[in-house]
Amino acid sequence: KNKDSVILRNLPKNHLSHYDLNQLTVSSTPLENKEEVLILTPMSKFLPEYWDNLNRLTYDHSLISLGFILPRTEDGNVALRKLEIAIKATQGNPVTKFKKITVLRQDSNSLESQLEKDRHAFSVQKPRRALMALARNSLVFTTISPSTSWVLWLDSDIIETPHSVIQEMAAHDKPVLSANVYQRFYNEESKKNDIRPYDFNNWVESEEGLKLASTLGEDEIVVEGYAEMATYRPLMAHFYDHNGDKNTEMALDGVGGGAVLVKADVHRDGAMFPSFPFYHLIETEGFARMAKRLGYEVFGLPNYLVYHYNE
Amino acid sequence: KNKDSVILRNLPKNHLSHYDLNQLTVSSTPLENKEEVLILTPMSKFLPEYWDNLNRLTYDHSLISLGFILPRTEDGNVALRKLEIAIKATQGNPVTKFKKITVLRQDSNSLESQLEKDRHAFSVQKPRRALMALARNSLVFTTISPSTSWVLWLDSDIIETPHSVIQEMAAHDKPVLSANVYQRFYNEESKKNDIRPYDFNNWVESEEGLKLASTLGEDEIVVEGYAEMATYRPLMAHFYDHNGDKNTEMALDGVGGGAVLVKADVHRDGAMFPSFPFYHLIETEGFARMAKRLGYEVFGLPNYLVYHYNE
Ligand SMILES: Nc1nc2c(ncn2[C@@H]2O[C@H](COP(=O)(O)OP(=O)(O)O)[C@@H](O)[C@H]2O)c(=O)[nH]1
Ligand SMILES: Nc1nc2c(ncn2[C@@H]2O[C@H](COP(=O)(O)OP(=O)(O)O)[C@@H](O)[C@H]2O)c(=O)[nH]1
Ligand SMILES: [Mn+2]
Ligand SMILES: [Mn+2]
Repeated sequence: KNKDSVILRNLPKNHLSHYDLNQLTVSSTPLENKEEVLILTPMSKFLPEYWDNLNRLTYDHSLISLGFILPRTEDGNVALRKLEIAIKATQGNPVTKFKKITVLRQDSNSLESQLEKDRHAFSVQKPRRALMALARNSLVFTTISPSTSWVLWLDSDIIETPHSVIQEMAAHDKPVLSANVYQRFYNEESKKNDIRPYDFNNWVESEEGLKLASTLGEDEIVVEGYAEMATYRPLMAHFYDHNGDKNTEMALDGVGGGAVLVKADVHRDGAMFPSFPFYHLIETEGFARMAKRLGYEVFGLPNYLVYHYNE
Repeated sequence: KNKDSVILRNLPKNHLSHYDLNQLTVSSTPLENKEEVLILTPMSKFLPEYWDNLNRLTYDHSLISLGFILPRTEDGNVALRKLEIAIKATQGNPVTKFKKITVLRQDSNSLESQLEKDRHAFSVQKPRRALMALARNSLVFTTISPSTSWVLWLDSDIIETPHSVIQEMAAHDKPVLSANVYQRFYNEESKKNDIRPYDFNNWVESEEGLKLASTLGEDEIVVEGYAEMATYRPLMAHFYDHNGDKNTEMALDGVGGGAVLVKADVHRDGAMFPSFPFYHLIETEGFARMAKRLGYEVFGLPNYLVYHYNE
């Protein structure tokens, strides 16, 4: 598509906004084209490291809007108080100030326990991820504007990304592009700081995965990363090569939500996070399937790492 | 849900908007609760009768936002010029002025011929309605805001509705509710002005419809109202009773897009218009299926008529 200027006319006095979606650019050089980016984060906990990382992004903050959605739980209350203090500091500083920040409070319920062992139990994946899907949909569909070119999904516990993550990921010019989510830890064996894979939702479909899906009832789902359901899918987490080119791309069929850059048109065309089984997939994995159904390609960057908090 | 006030805090100086979705009301008395309504219209032609009808709506215009999406065709150019003139007059008049108006220009292609015989040909239904689905998704997902309680889908050729259509339809308190789209015509036989059914996309699924769908390939669709595909589905158009209660409700499985009132939460949860076959349905009919998949009920008002333009 050849799109060259964002807004035709904007007449706030008449309360009329006029946008030509065809003139909205979404390019591999978004900063040069002053493309607007919307960073979206579902947030059950507030981590200062996440906020510091956000503040340090080198993409022009006046082109970045932020959107958060928090659960109606006590965890959500705590996170909200911390988030509001952080926002005040950031928006009060001309160096870090973002274009616009929207904070939503979920209207639906959330799981009570957010302990890692509880939220990762196989049995809770379907209800937990269905609720996450609804939260993500409410967030994206009430914050995306006609002038948004890119949406960056960034989980609240992604505490370290390259500071130019937006520019570097956009340079690949992909409709949907997922970074590889790793985790730093202290390796007791080698007695050294080390890294290990964290997110297994970035995957390539396998024969076995398809065969497994075909045996399921209409309302059953496949969730990746559980011994109960061996899919033998190639997982991007395992494709990381320390010496490899960080720009290496691989086509994916499922994505996680940790750090995913999406062209806003993909969401605008209707790509949402299914809260119901969609081809036996839900939430971010179902989103990837839906983006493909809408005619878009989905990719990952196995050697481009971002880091998840270590609880 | 118990929702009682819209916005917790709104601090534009900090560029921070804070919304508690649980406090957004969506009730059977929307005017009393000052609930915001978003009226959405895909528009390939501008009809003065449509605009007059809109201006006459008795719902508080300061609570109504309008959103339009126009195709990038010569038809679209013509409609845009007329729409802009109409908007100027309406927004310049404190009696008719709406809260906010957003006009989008589609980024995707459209069918060339908009003649009724061409756009109703069986063979063009799939591509035509897939494009309409994308246009509807772009429109709703870039205009819905965290303060929107209701979305009224109103086609540009619906030239006559009751003036209190928003209040009257909202009073039913349904997640998705479709009016019955009829057409006025001069009956040559009786030599009188008469009415006849126009939109056959409001239907109840039938055994035959399901059986037919089960014989189709994954990418094939059922479109209602074509002899090529007899579904024997009960059509709401045929349930109109001139002497009946205009508040009679009937559960539906498919809806058309003529005049449909949707609780904004349904779209926020992710209900979109599939441009790909979703349970062998697309566009508005697929939307009804998706709303049901998301756990919402879909209804129609067989005796509540709105009128389609007669070309
Ligand atoms: N709004 C909302 N966000 C949540 C909820 N549960 C988790 N999150 C956020 O959603 C993202 C993914 O959840 P997380 O628990 O980290 O998933 P995991 O890393 O796969 O174990 C993180 O940004 C969480 O802060 C919830 O109930 N509501
Ligand atoms: N944005 C957009 N709107 C369209 C296009 N084609 C039709 N429309 C509008 O979509 C609605 C339904 O289309 P219409 O042709 O009336 O369908 P019909 O009544 O079922 O024959 C009307 O409001 C049209 O003005 C298109 O290509 N792009
Ligand atoms: Mn996490
Ligand atoms: Mn029409």
